[in-house]
Amino acid sequence: MTSHSTNMRIKLPTICIILEVILIILFGVFVRYDKETDAKKWHAHHDHNGSEIENDFYYRYPSFQDVHVMIFIGFGFLMTFLKRYGFGSVAFNFLIASFALQWATLMQGFFHGMGSDGKIHIGIESMINADFCTGAVLISFGGILGKTSPVQLLVMAVFEVTLFAINEYIILNIVEAKDAGGSMTIHTFGAYFGLVVSRILYRPHLEKSRHREGSVYHSDLFAMIGTIYLWMFWPSFNSAITAHGDSQHRTVMNTYYSLAACTLATFALSSLLSEEGKLDMVHIQNASLAGGVAVGTAGEMMLTPFGSMIVGSLAGIISTLGYKFLTPILDSKLKIQDTCGIHNLHGMPGILGAIVGAITASMATHDIYGDGMANVFPLVSDGVVTASGQGVRQAIALAVALGFALIGGCVVGFIMKIPIFGSPNDTLCFEDQIYWEVPEEHHAAHEEMIAVATEEGTNA
Amino acid sequence: MTSHSTNMRIKLPTICIILEVILIILFGVFVRYDKETDAKKWHAHHDHNGSEIENDFYYRYPSFQDVHVMIFIGFGFLMTFLKRYGFGSVAFNFLIASFALQWATLMQGFFHGMGSDGKIHIGIESMINADFCTGAVLISFGGILGKTSPVQLLVMAVFEVTLFAINEYIILNIVEAKDAGGSMTIHTFGAYFGLVVSRILYRPHLEKSRHREGSVYHSDLFAMIGTIYLWMFWPSFNSAITAHGDSQHRTVMNTYYSLAACTLATFALSSLLSEEGKLDMVHIQNASLAGGVAVGTAGEMMLTPFGSMIVGSLAGIISTLGYKFLTPILDSKLKIQDTCGIHNLHGMPGILGAIVGAITASMATHDIYGDGMANVFPLVSDGVVTASGQGVRQAIALAVALGFALIGGCVVGFIMKIPIFGSPNDTLCFEDQIYWEVPEEHHAAHEEMIAVATEEGTNA
Amino acid sequence: MTSHSTNMRIKLPTICIILEVILIILFGVFVRYDKETDAKKWHAHHDHNGSEIENDFYYRYPSFQDVHVMIFIGFGFLMTFLKRYGFGSVAFNFLIASFALQWATLMQGFFHGMGSDGKIHIGIESMINADFCTGAVLISFGGILGKTSPVQLLVMAVFEVTLFAINEYIILNIVEAKDAGGSMTIHTFGAYFGLVVSRILYRPHLEKSRHREGSVYHSDLFAMIGTIYLWMFWPSFNSAITAHGDSQHRTVMNTYYSLAACTLATFALSSLLSEEGKLDMVHIQNASLAGGVAVGTAGEMMLTPFGSMIVGSLAGIISTLGYKFLTPILDSKLKIQDTCGIHNLHGMPGILGAIVGAITASMATHDIYGDGMANVFPLVSDGVVTASGQGVRQAIALAVALGFALIGGCVVGFIMKIPIFGSPNDTLCFEDQIYWEVPEEHHAAHEEMIAVATEEGTNA
Repeated sequence: MTSHSTNMRIKLPTICIILEVILIILFGVFVRYDKETDAKKWHAHHDHNGSEIENDFYYRYPSFQDVHVMIFIGFGFLMTFLKRYGFGSVAFNFLIASFALQWATLMQGFFHGMGSDGKIHIGIESMINADFCTGAVLISFGGILGKTSPVQLLVMAVFEVTLFAINEYIILNIVEAKDAGGSMTIHTFGAYFGLVVSRILYRPHLEKSRHREGSVYHSDLFAMIGTIYLWMFWPSFNSAITAHGDSQHRTVMNTYYSLAACTLATFALSSLLSEEGKLDMVHIQNASLAGGVAVGTAGEMMLTPFGSMIVGSLAGIISTLGYKFLTPILDSKLKIQDTCGIHNLHGMPGILGAIVGAITASMATHDIYGDGMANVFPLVSDGVVTASGQGVRQAIALAVALGFALIGGCVVGFIMKIPIFGSPNDTLCFEDQIYWEVPEEHHAAHEEMIAVATEEGTNA
Repeated sequence: MTSHSTNMRIKLPTICIILEVILIILFGVFVRYDKETDAKKWHAHHDHNGSEIENDFYYRYPSFQDVHVMIFIGFGFLMTFLKRYGFGSVAFNFLIASFALQWATLMQGFFHGMGSDGKIHIGIESMINADFCTGAVLISFGGILGKTSPVQLLVMAVFEVTLFAINEYIILNIVEAKDAGGSMTIHTFGAYFGLVVSRILYRPHLEKSRHREGSVYHSDLFAMIGTIYLWMFWPSFNSAITAHGDSQHRTVMNTYYSLAACTLATFALSSLLSEEGKLDMVHIQNASLAGGVAVGTAGEMMLTPFGSMIVGSLAGIISTLGYKFLTPILDSKLKIQDTCGIHNLHGMPGILGAIVGAITASMATHDIYGDGMANVFPLVSDGVVTASGQGVRQAIALAVALGFALIGGCVVGFIMKIPIFGSPNDTLCFEDQIYWEVPEEHHAAHEEMIAVATEEGTNA
Repeated sequence: MTSHSTNMRIKLPTICIILEVILIILFGVFVRYDKETDAKKWHAHHDHNGSEIENDFYYRYPSFQDVHVMIFIGFGFLMTFLKRYGFGSVAFNFLIASFALQWATLMQGFFHGMGSDGKIHIGIESMINADFCTGAVLISFGGILGKTSPVQLLVMAVFEVTLFAINEYIILNIVEAKDAGGSMTIHTFGAYFGLVVSRILYRPHLEKSRHREGSVYHSDLFAMIGTIYLWMFWPSFNSAITAHGDSQHRTVMNTYYSLAACTLATFALSSLLSEEGKLDMVHIQNASLAGGVAVGTAGEMMLTPFGSMIVGSLAGIISTLGYKFLTPILDSKLKIQDTCGIHNLHGMPGILGAIVGAITASMATHDIYGDGMANVFPLVSDGVVTASGQGVRQAIALAVALGFALIGGCVVGFIMKIPIFGSPNDTLCFEDQIYWEVPEEHHAAHEEMIAVATEEGTNA
């Protein structure tokens, strides 16, 4: 009974305040400006030949802002498709992202950004990485959307960010795989982590809330705002932390064509899979983005626009098929209730992206990359591994990401089940009124229903 | 009867898959990275003095992303004003733009981007040009919004993109006119092409769907998202492919002031033309953008902010008057059913922009432009033509654009009428339900009406 | 009675046209391209070492566009929370911003941008400053939202922009305080100006319109678009005109962490202040932005991320408390009817920002800033004042801003009361139908009510 209390008056303020106080203390102790943000160091730092334009800010800030839009508008509005969970979608997204980006700064710093002075020195690239890590948490959020309390979400973020940073450290610094756009570190990890959490939090009586799981006409338009922003800015996402110059430029181009091809494939499949040939907004809102996920690893490589379009088309096909056939099976057979279909948008396309990355890496030659090899495959450039060896490392990285996601999601799922964190009962999922002051006209319509549902839940 | 079949189950997947396969094959054969996106070439390329910031990516990517937002959010949401065609507006926009940008890369490459090796070498400027070409298709889409099948739209895009590339080649490379923001190549061409198509596809019984041609309160707010994004980012549109340095900077500034002045003119006229002095959302959503169109040619020239404001004010006045007086006449007398009023937003302001460009060019002097003349008017700088000669070339370019639009639109309109491409009957225009799975509550409300309308249409 | 005429057919076109004609004439006489936008001057200007990337455009245009989005989408949509004032919110915002940015170019030029040739030379920084000045007007607009005619708003903009420019000149050029993100010049000035205007325009019978002062479900989602864009792009706002290099970079970072911390504090307080622990959309939409306001002065200083997070948390707490407890008191005791709660979002956090700026300035040392001192505190760097002296100047600047706001708002409020400018009567506030053609279904619902209200108002 108490486990289903939806009153957050003590819990939510308490966890927010405790977390923020911890963040502030740890930032005070460990976080410092890096040489590009520090007034003294930048002005003492002369290898920029006297031009301020060589500050990394000018190379990466436009990409950062696009990523920022994807995190807060893209993910936030994509999830507003639910008819009565618009506030929770956009605003809990806002809350957990705001927390996660601060926590990620620390965790990524601890695991792979510590200077010799024991401090974490940060600049624009740290901010991009913090937003990336946040993206993984928001992907997982999509799998449990509407079925958790905001306190549970913050708890998940605390642990998922930590695991993300360790996983990322292993993949990038130990395995030394490449994954600039995060097909493995962000999408595969975030999706399978979220799916396992969703499995652990399985709700046997969710059918009592299913009538609220759909969209209304205008909520689908709000969701399209999220979709289109994610789609447009995905080239910035994949290129945000690749090497300056041709690498950023090429990654943008590969992602652009992959997404365009993916969109056509998605429309084709969506129509084909409907008896009346009618398009389904769920597919358009989600599967058309799979092309961005699927070039998250290979985007910076010499994949060519042609190769990117093949990958994008495949991603769109796989993703749409997943929404049509796999999601119902996951639900009924595996007891994974995946609200947003993150398995179709991030899971399978993430794995596809990892495989494409491994293949593309194993085909790298000095004839194709020239001196650019040093940026894209430094180990190959230095003669430490062959191209095939790099391909193997990419495959290992995928296994690491999956392992971290499955085990991590399992542990964190059980932590989230601890009753003190609260959780709506099965009759009150996908409903804003339990956590929000909802404007009256909406309230009036559902007031009675909620009263009844609460009653039921309490007695359940 | 079959010509009015709205079932897209075979047609839409077929055309999408055929087109994407063709695109992939042609990209594989013809498209290559250019020297700024290719790992080997960029690193072998030393005229950037060793600084990665000289990669064209850093000069143009922020502008590109703004253009991208205009194409997908701007055009897409501007058209969501229709009460029951929000899905079709934003998502068909998404579909045809995703196709058109790939096809445009090829067509623009074939007609004016082929290297000596018979390959098309692409970078950020190609992507901007592809988005520009897509913009022309979306303008035409606005003229026939709600009255065509998605298959017809893709067919239109195939031909319109091709004609766009030829027209652009003649204007920029043969006539050697300047048109960086596309007053002629994009707006005039796209608008008159769309108007002719709309004329060919004239629907004598469209009054049966007129009750669906209006807006509802929130659909007008969705449309304002489109308007404001187009308005804000128009400076990026006009400057995206102008010369580096002062040219990009000046074009942004001219466009900024033109649009601001246009907005005041639009509010003034909208109120003045209403008996009760009430403002009309149609005017605000559309005519306030005419100032961007009207400086699409002259924006990079030394038009001055003062000149830009005069042009913007004129554009706002002409455009609002067009919505009030001309649109009804085009409909009743010329049988042009222009859903979004593209004649007012893109047609007349495009011609105005071409004329302003011709006048401004003919007034160019070395005293005003200095060494910058080489960027803005290379022919004048090289002494090939006088300033007046350049002005004449600008006028010729307008005639070319109009010619291509009128003849091309006529031919393509008849192709689009081929019954196999499908088309809703006159009673089912402006209605999402024929192509989309629409959420239930909306469905319920109109289910019966649609059933009746379909019946009627079948018997018509 | 005539003072409550809502027919704008003569008034609105007249003022728009007169203002635009004056603007065009003054631009023609006074405004010229600066050396970075002028074709001749830029090409004659060789201190950019031959690289076009050194044009200020590339340092500031991405930030400018983010600021532009904040002004037109951010402010515009933030105010659409009102159930029946969405058109007025987003479109009057559009109108007055379009006017104000033109007028601001002139006023800021006259007061602190005039060249020795008696001309105002403009470039990207002028455009950012014009948008900033516009921001102050839009803040004031938030205090009187739904209660004025568009003519009154334009009149307010004419005077407020002028006073803004004088105030800014005194603060930045005479007092020589630092305020790159405008905690004082924009937020404190704009908020207290608007509050005084709201006081002067006090409406004793506003309770007759209170039923329209709330939101509906989807209007709150539209408002969240505004919120999120403001939140995401605030780092660009605060850094847009700081010095190139580390200063822009550092300001972005400080603002980013301040806002993230502020969001957690806002969620905590919003839940804590509700009896049922339910979150209030008003708090989330507004108070979570206070962290950006509060580092508007100190953001460019060596505040550290740690310091920024403390400031952001405080701002979120103060702002949420303000919405809960202070707004009702301002209304009932001080007769200040602050529609959007600008006192909580801009007023108190602006003062907090000024104080934080004064303290941070007074703690500046050469050991912390190194050669960067010349950019951040030129007076201290030149030995003209001590750090404490700079702190005192910052405090004086706050007093100047408050003084200008209070006196200016008072005078301008009385000007706005002149009956000729029109004004809705107390029964018709927060209602789009008096100034807009509203789509029918909405109209039908409220037609009768409005007819009655108008009747009442006329007899009042």
